[in-house]
Amino acid sequence: MAKYVYFFGGRKAEGDGKMKDLLGGKGAGLAEMTNSGIPVPPGFTITTKVCNYFYKNKGRMPSGFKQEIQKNIQKLERTTGKRFGDAKNPLLVSVRSGAKISMPGMMDTILNLGLNDETIKGLIKKSNDEKFAWDAYRRLVQMFGNVVMGVEKEKFEKLLDKKKKEGKVKFDQQLSVDAIKDLVDGFKKVYQQETGKKFPPDSLEQLKMAIESVFESWNNPRAVTYRKLNKIPDDLGTAINIQTMVFGNMGNDSGTGVGFTRNPSTGKKKFYGEYLLNAQGEDVVAGVRTPLPIENLKKEMPKVYQELWEITTKLEKHYRDTQDFEFTVENGKLFMLQTRIGKRTAFAAVKIAVDMVKEGLITEEEALMRLAPAQIDQLLHPILDPKVKVDVIARGLPASPGAASGTIIFTAEEAVEKSKKGPVILVRQETCPDDIHGMDAAKGILTARGGMTSHAAVVARGMGKPCIAGCETLQISEENKEIIVNGKTIKEGDWLTIDGATGRVILGRVPTVKPSLSGDFGIFMKWADKIRKLGVRANADIPRDAKTAINFGAEGIGLCRTEHMFFAQERVPIVQKMILADTEKERRKFLDELLPMQREDFLGLFKEMKGYPVIIRTIDPPLHEFLPKREELMVEIALMKERKKPEKEIKKKEALLARVNQLHEINPMLGHRGCRLGITYPEITEMQVRAIMEAACKLAKKGKTVLPEIMIPLVGHINELKNQKAVVVRVAKSVMKDYGVKIKYLVGTMIEIPRGAITADEIAAEAEFFSFGTNDLTQMGFGFSRDDAGKFINDYLSEGILKSDPFQTIDQDGIGKLIGMGIKRGRKTKKNLEIGICGEHGGDPDSVKFCHRIGMDYVSCSPFRVPIARLAAAQAVLEEKK
Amino acid sequence: MAKYVYFFGGRKAEGDGKMKDLLGGKGAGLAEMTNSGIPVPPGFTITTKVCNYFYKNKGRMPSGFKQEIQKNIQKLERTTGKRFGDAKNPLLVSVRSGAKISMPGMMDTILNLGLNDETIKGLIKKSNDEKFAWDAYRRLVQMFGNVVMGVEKEKFEKLLDKKKKEGKVKFDQQLSVDAIKDLVDGFKKVYQQETGKKFPPDSLEQLKMAIESVFESWNNPRAVTYRKLNKIPDDLGTAINIQTMVFGNMGNDSGTGVGFTRNPSTGKKKFYGEYLLNAQGEDVVAGVRTPLPIENLKKEMPKVYQELWEITTKLEKHYRDTQDFEFTVENGKLFMLQTRIGKRTAFAAVKIAVDMVKEGLITEEEALMRLAPAQIDQLLHPILDPKVKVDVIARGLPASPGAASGTIIFTAEEAVEKSKKGPVILVRQETCPDDIHGMDAAKGILTARGGMTSHAAVVARGMGKPCIAGCETLQISEENKEIIVNGKTIKEGDWLTIDGATGRVILGRVPTVKPSLSGDFGIFMKWADKIRKLGVRANADIPRDAKTAINFGAEGIGLCRTEHMFFAQERVPIVQKMILADTEKERRKFLDELLPMQREDFLGLFKEMKGYPVIIRTIDPPLHEFLPKREELMVEIALMKERKKPEKEIKKKEALLARVNQLHEINPMLGHRGCRLGITYPEITEMQVRAIMEAACKLAKKGKTVLPEIMIPLVGHINELKNQKAVVVRVAKSVMKDYGVKIKYLVGTMIEIPRGAITADEIAAEAEFFSFGTNDLTQMGFGFSRDDAGKFINDYLSEGILKSDPFQTIDQDGIGKLIGMGIKRGRKTKKNLEIGICGEHGGDPDSVKFCHRIGMDYVSCSPFRVPIARLAAAQAVLEEKK
Repeated sequence: MAKYVYFFGGRKAEGDGKMKDLLGGKGAGLAEMTNSGIPVPPGFTITTKVCNYFYKNKGRMPSGFKQEIQKNIQKLERTTGKRFGDAKNPLLVSVRSGAKISMPGMMDTILNLGLNDETIKGLIKKSNDEKFAWDAYRRLVQMFGNVVMGVEKEKFEKLLDKKKKEGKVKFDQQLSVDAIKDLVDGFKKVYQQETGKKFPPDSLEQLKMAIESVFESWNNPRAVTYRKLNKIPDDLGTAINIQTMVFGNMGNDSGTGVGFTRNPSTGKKKFYGEYLLNAQGEDVVAGVRTPLPIENLKKEMPKVYQELWEITTKLEKHYRDTQDFEFTVENGKLFMLQTRIGKRTAFAAVKIAVDMVKEGLITEEEALMRLAPAQIDQLLHPILDPKVKVDVIARGLPASPGAASGTIIFTAEEAVEKSKKGPVILVRQETCPDDIHGMDAAKGILTARGGMTSHAAVVARGMGKPCIAGCETLQISEENKEIIVNGKTIKEGDWLTIDGATGRVILGRVPTVKPSLSGDFGIFMKWADKIRKLGVRANADIPRDAKTAINFGAEGIGLCRTEHMFFAQERVPIVQKMILADTEKERRKFLDELLPMQREDFLGLFKEMKGYPVIIRTIDPPLHEFLPKREELMVEIALMKERKKPEKEIKKKEALLARVNQLHEINPMLGHRGCRLGITYPEITEMQVRAIMEAACKLAKKGKTVLPEIMIPLVGHINELKNQKAVVVRVAKSVMKDYGVKIKYLVGTMIEIPRGAITADEIAAEAEFFSFGTNDLTQMGFGFSRDDAGKFINDYLSEGILKSDPFQTIDQDGIGKLIGMGIKRGRKTKKNLEIGICGEHGGDPDSVKFCHRIGMDYVSCSPFRVPIARLAAAQAVLEEKK
Repeated sequence: MAKYVYFFGGRKAEGDGKMKDLLGGKGAGLAEMTNSGIPVPPGFTITTKVCNYFYKNKGRMPSGFKQEIQKNIQKLERTTGKRFGDAKNPLLVSVRSGAKISMPGMMDTILNLGLNDETIKGLIKKSNDEKFAWDAYRRLVQMFGNVVMGVEKEKFEKLLDKKKKEGKVKFDQQLSVDAIKDLVDGFKKVYQQETGKKFPPDSLEQLKMAIESVFESWNNPRAVTYRKLNKIPDDLGTAINIQTMVFGNMGNDSGTGVGFTRNPSTGKKKFYGEYLLNAQGEDVVAGVRTPLPIENLKKEMPKVYQELWEITTKLEKHYRDTQDFEFTVENGKLFMLQTRIGKRTAFAAVKIAVDMVKEGLITEEEALMRLAPAQIDQLLHPILDPKVKVDVIARGLPASPGAASGTIIFTAEEAVEKSKKGPVILVRQETCPDDIHGMDAAKGILTARGGMTSHAAVVARGMGKPCIAGCETLQISEENKEIIVNGKTIKEGDWLTIDGATGRVILGRVPTVKPSLSGDFGIFMKWADKIRKLGVRANADIPRDAKTAINFGAEGIGLCRTEHMFFAQERVPIVQKMILADTEKERRKFLDELLPMQREDFLGLFKEMKGYPVIIRTIDPPLHEFLPKREELMVEIALMKERKKPEKEIKKKEALLARVNQLHEINPMLGHRGCRLGITYPEITEMQVRAIMEAACKLAKKGKTVLPEIMIPLVGHINELKNQKAVVVRVAKSVMKDYGVKIKYLVGTMIEIPRGAITADEIAAEAEFFSFGTNDLTQMGFGFSRDDAGKFINDYLSEGILKSDPFQTIDQDGIGKLIGMGIKRGRKTKKNLEIGICGEHGGDPDSVKFCHRIGMDYVSCSPFRVPIARLAAAQAVLEEKK
């Protein structure tokens, strides 16, 4: 029979730290800590298998499960000496979700479970604190009503507010025992009114309902959104931890806190955390009260502090990584409630990784696995220009680094709306999981309450966005849509800048500068370069981008889109005339005008690239993209006629429309573009090749090395490549003859049409290199227009039809097979064929790893993604070793 | 060393009838006839290999070739006793092209080669006819000048016309010897003026130039067009036949003719042909003089007639097929110049095939190979409604069967232009190869001159178009664009009807009726059905089409496009309201209105199909196809504003535009369509499945058999199919429960997305059948939008980048591989998966054969193509046996 429940307690656990799949991260951590002799309140973990069974069987539990729970409760009773439902010495427990991958605040938690009108007596007696006990009961009814039965929080809060008004007090704690007793009665009535049922007095019934509710919370909307954002599979399921309650709110010799073994923001090796005295665990994370820094604890409870430091230092060594822990002190006794790998900023991750290598704690290879490649993005984010004088209006906690400017917005919904028009900064009292979509849309987050581990801080760091938390000098009125600070009023829509690295809140917009890429980061990236086998190139069209790419470590240009050069303001009119030309002769005239401009472009690129290979793609988009829009012309002409404009002017416009109509396409993506243009208008290819080769020859004559690789786009048939290659070779020969130099150059092709991948063996006979255009390959392989897929792709993701957006991460099961086919067949014909990728997937870590596994020579991505690709490529090698 | 030249003569040839690849059709035929003892003027054939060498080596001949020619000329001189360039007994030869596949009139021919100022003397002496000899010389200079040197015909004709005027004669033959001598001089001068060179007197030089010219004519524009139209590969090359001249123009005991062993129009077993006395070969084919029927020869030259009959009867038995032959009688002696398999109408082909099986000459299997499947199309063409009284204004030769109405047009260019607006009939004095594109565009062809074997007749039969030739009562003025007949004037643009089966020319439009499919055709198709393994279904959306399909032998419906039902006039407004609905509830309301209509549609289909399987595809096109056009709305609104229409009306239109904009797509082909609609709007799928199953249940309750196969379009990912299948199964179950019957039904999918083919193994786990949508698979696999590919596909075909239009014939090398992958992977998962095709390729013979080879279960095509597919499927089996 399957085992559904794992006990931990009395220095011995049935599970261990490796069993995250089954016990979740929290459960595995509790088991591991218990086994290591660390003080952990005893309890048991219900496995993720039960959760999955629950979902597969319409909310039923597996057979034998009930009995297992009962056995474990009995064991817990033996371990603690307390008894469930006992009026004398009642066992109270917490019920907490805990998935394999941490989803902070996303699922449900219930505390103080086991209290009822009988067991409260025992709690009063044992705690010797009637008010504390009744308050615990009140909290249970409220939490249970809200979490398990879905009663709105406000229904309870209204009663609480009323009581505080009656008692003329400000804080909950100031209420009298009788007032709290009244509230318990009142809450129970609310519970019954709203649910039609009595609050369940039976402890076991409470537990059963709580377990089901936690399982159900796995699929609540915010958890689903969080998983989608963080690419966590929906079928992992959550475990549930049932743990003996310890109380941090039993007076001022009690408390609760969270901490990190190193600073999660900077990575500095310094014990780091926050706590609240006389508080229950959720109070710290929820950000209702602003907690104290952990150094304070050294003064207030030196023994506890010392023990905590020793335990967490041991944990860090044991897990060989920074720990994020939760603890509670009950009447001076320390309990560890959780330990897990600490989330951190990219800055911190790099520093910690490099430091730990120096400390001899981990190897370079392990260090490289400690940073998710996507996190590097944060390191490349701008910081405030230090030369600019700024108007600092407030200071808060530096909760997530980076700097951002935007207009102020007060709700998540509006953040989503307004962000479509420009950058916004989301300003909130405190954030909650319901705000995630707004945080996603905003450039930065600013809260008045909450600490470094508040919801806002944790989520913002995960998103790699600047965040300032606990900026209490701000008086935020979400209702009036204004902030009052030092007598100044700042309105919605005003510009604000936040510096998440220092906590400075600044009025107005502040220019930013790029961060330095040396120091720890430089060391770290060198380790990556030492290990990776994939080359990393950049997609760059202009010298400035090429320079950035080189700075970020690119080893060549994988894609230069020559048509981007056509879109320059002063060139568009010439390009238009070229397109509208009636004869080849006329077309050549305008191409001749474009020639020197393109030559200058390439000269600039070649110079920046200093002999690295530069792949230049001949013109790709359909010509009508350069012309005025058809429907606008139609409206214009209709109005000209209506307004009886001169016949001649109308005729001229109509002639233009006629040509635009001629070029108009129903499906431009599948139309007259790519090499199809070069085949029908070989003179365009000729001009581009001439520009490339003239630029290369000029430099070569000066003794510089240049390595142009000319790439023909959209090849689906070998004969297309043959046709265009003939043009390239003819023009290249002629230019080299004119200049009297010989240059090594390659002619290759994009593989971006499914037929191209399928017939890659034939195409490789003519191509000197392949570059997979995975954007188009995905479009055509899936039959998804990237411009239009928005109409259904979200439904696809939310229905679970697709696990991730195939335009972001290569669809390995489908498009990936096409790529694999292309590589295998291409190399069958030409063993040493140079093969790379230049779609936007080239900067996506999962896709980069796929490119490594499938045997490509290099990836090419936007300059800012080059370091990401470098790390992903190194990790791919390390993952393969396993 | 390679052998480049094959001799024939003296009852013995170096080649034989099987060597068509090397000697061309004509050369192989001459060799075979020579070997059979049939009187053939001796000569030799230059192989197609020389032609290919010529093209690969920029017009050079292989080494040793010249020597081989010389040796063969010497052999020819020994055989004939004549000598090349000899003034006493000169050897004169014809130089004719002859490819493997006959291309009548497409390439060059030169007669009388070997004449010069010396050899003319010998010809005069031998022929004893000075005028004949000089006329032969004149013809050589003209033909050589025109064909070899490209001098325009008119330059010579002008001189000839002048001479005739001077001599006051009407026909060439009436000119005096001196006049003709003068013409020879004059022609030589024209030759020198136009080419800058003297007419070459040396016979060997003449021959060398003529050979090169014939090779060059392989790539003249009309030959290239002909090959493209008839899908003849460009790299076959042509052979050249050098043959001793025999003269049909040596007086009234001479003549020349062509014939068939059976009637090529009706297939009747009756000796059939035409001849001209005192004429050279080209005169018959060119249609300048109208020849006499071959029966006349029986009276005029009974011995020759008898010999000809015996020879050709022997040839038919020898080749086991109808022969098309050319002969010349020189001073009473018969020579055979050519024999080949006779081209025939589809009518004739079926009759001849069935007759020959009855005669025991061939087997049923051979008979099935005697008809190109595409030809069947001709049999399905309409004939004139016999019940309608018609106004016959003239009668001509019934040159190609079928009937057509159209407006009159006089030039090929205008035929192409005007045919875009409506059907046209091309009316010409006579047609020539330059007219091919006009003939292709016209619905039918009518000529005043030429016989059953004239250019117009041969080409029209090949194209399967009605043609009346030699309708000499018509006075056609191409200049005035009118026809005068019996005093009536008919103008360009007037309606005319021609009946190619009877030769009747009828004024006005005449309704047509479908031909009968029984008799010989029925027997023939039964043989095909006996042999073929592929099933043949039809694409049909409405009961009428289903009925036609059944009549044509369809065994089910392979594709019913349910959206075609949405386009019915009375339904479009409801469909629009459904699309514009803001909520699912509203959408369901309008879907409920559509439900009974769709149910009636399916009821009708199921009734017609009498228990055959019916594949019904759920909605496929993007919804905006049902809405007004975006750009038209934009113009309308702009004008309403300009005209200051009431604000309310404008707002209403703007709201419509907003919704249209919302649904607008950049690439609708790759957009929100197919199963993507069903996934985002499951209620549409629900309604359609309900309509299908209710119709099926109604019939089942009456005891009828129904076999619905519900097909989900555009599936690229297994999860898409899972999602839609769940809807289908749920609704089907519920309907069957309501009706209290159980129906066998299948749920399957289109494979039309490349990713669908690639992941067919996964998809097959959920699909009960696959239907390859090769239209979309070609679009996405090639990245060609069918709507837009017109902008480059012609360049692709003329540049030889593609051999044929992939939307007409499956691209076996690329898309075919995807299909193969889909089948293999699908069957790997589900061994007995039902697999078919429903793209338009299902009616293309080559594609049908491919579908057989690759292991499909059936093809589905438009009802009119069903018989074509049946024959192609049978031929595929027979071809495999070889």
